[in-house]
Amino acid sequence: MFAKACPSRHTLEHVTGRWGGLTMGVLVDGPLRFNELRRRVDGISEKMLSQTLQALERDGLVHREAQPTNPPRVDYSLTPLGRETAERLLALIHHLEARMPEVLEAQQAYDTR
Amino acid sequence: MFAKACPSRHTLEHVTGRWGGLTMGVLVDGPLRFNELRRRVDGISEKMLSQTLQALERDGLVHREAQPTNPPRVDYSLTPLGRETAERLLALIHHLEARMPEVLEAQQAYDTR
Repeated sequence: MFAKACPSRHTLEHVTGRWGGLTMGVLVDGPLRFNELRRRVDGISEKMLSQTLQALERDGLVHREAQPTNPPRVDYSLTPLGRETAERLLALIHHLEARMPEVLEAQQAYDTR
Repeated sequence: MFAKACPSRHTLEHVTGRWGGLTMGVLVDGPLRFNELRRRVDGISEKMLSQTLQALERDGLVHREAQPTNPPRVDYSLTPLGRETAERLLALIHHLEARMPEVLEAQQAYDTR
């Protein structure tokens, strides 16, 4: 992944980019519809969520299931690979959340020096 | 981290952004100087590496040590918090690297459907 041409870099970016990680994080609890996802990932636009889901689906991390109902209903869920990836990502997220007091302290020290 | 205003989102972005994660990843092996870092993080520009290191230093993840030599020598290393964070990040990176065949297969299936 440290080599410029390695395709795994793009996948890491999808998983850990501004929205990819949060989107995968909320899907860990189970399948969600587009609008449910939008509500849970606070601040994401419709366009960004749509692009994020497409990139994650293309990487084989998210499964898109269109129900043949009227109006059409689309569910998004993690694939097995997506779930394993999300678990490692959540370990990182929970670690950072737990250590935020330390991070904020470092930021204050940096800004006032 | 799923709330828009949470400061931990920025730190997650520094750690997992295009360059932050790779920079922390190469520092796991030990302290490095700026130019050594630049060589190991393939493709990063001088400006981006400088900005990346500043953000990681401000978050308390990277320590910058200027040696009083002539010419001045600056070493970058992970703080204890940075090391713990990098270990979780590397678990994610190694997982994705190992599963890239599956990801590439999913991408091909997506692109040809």
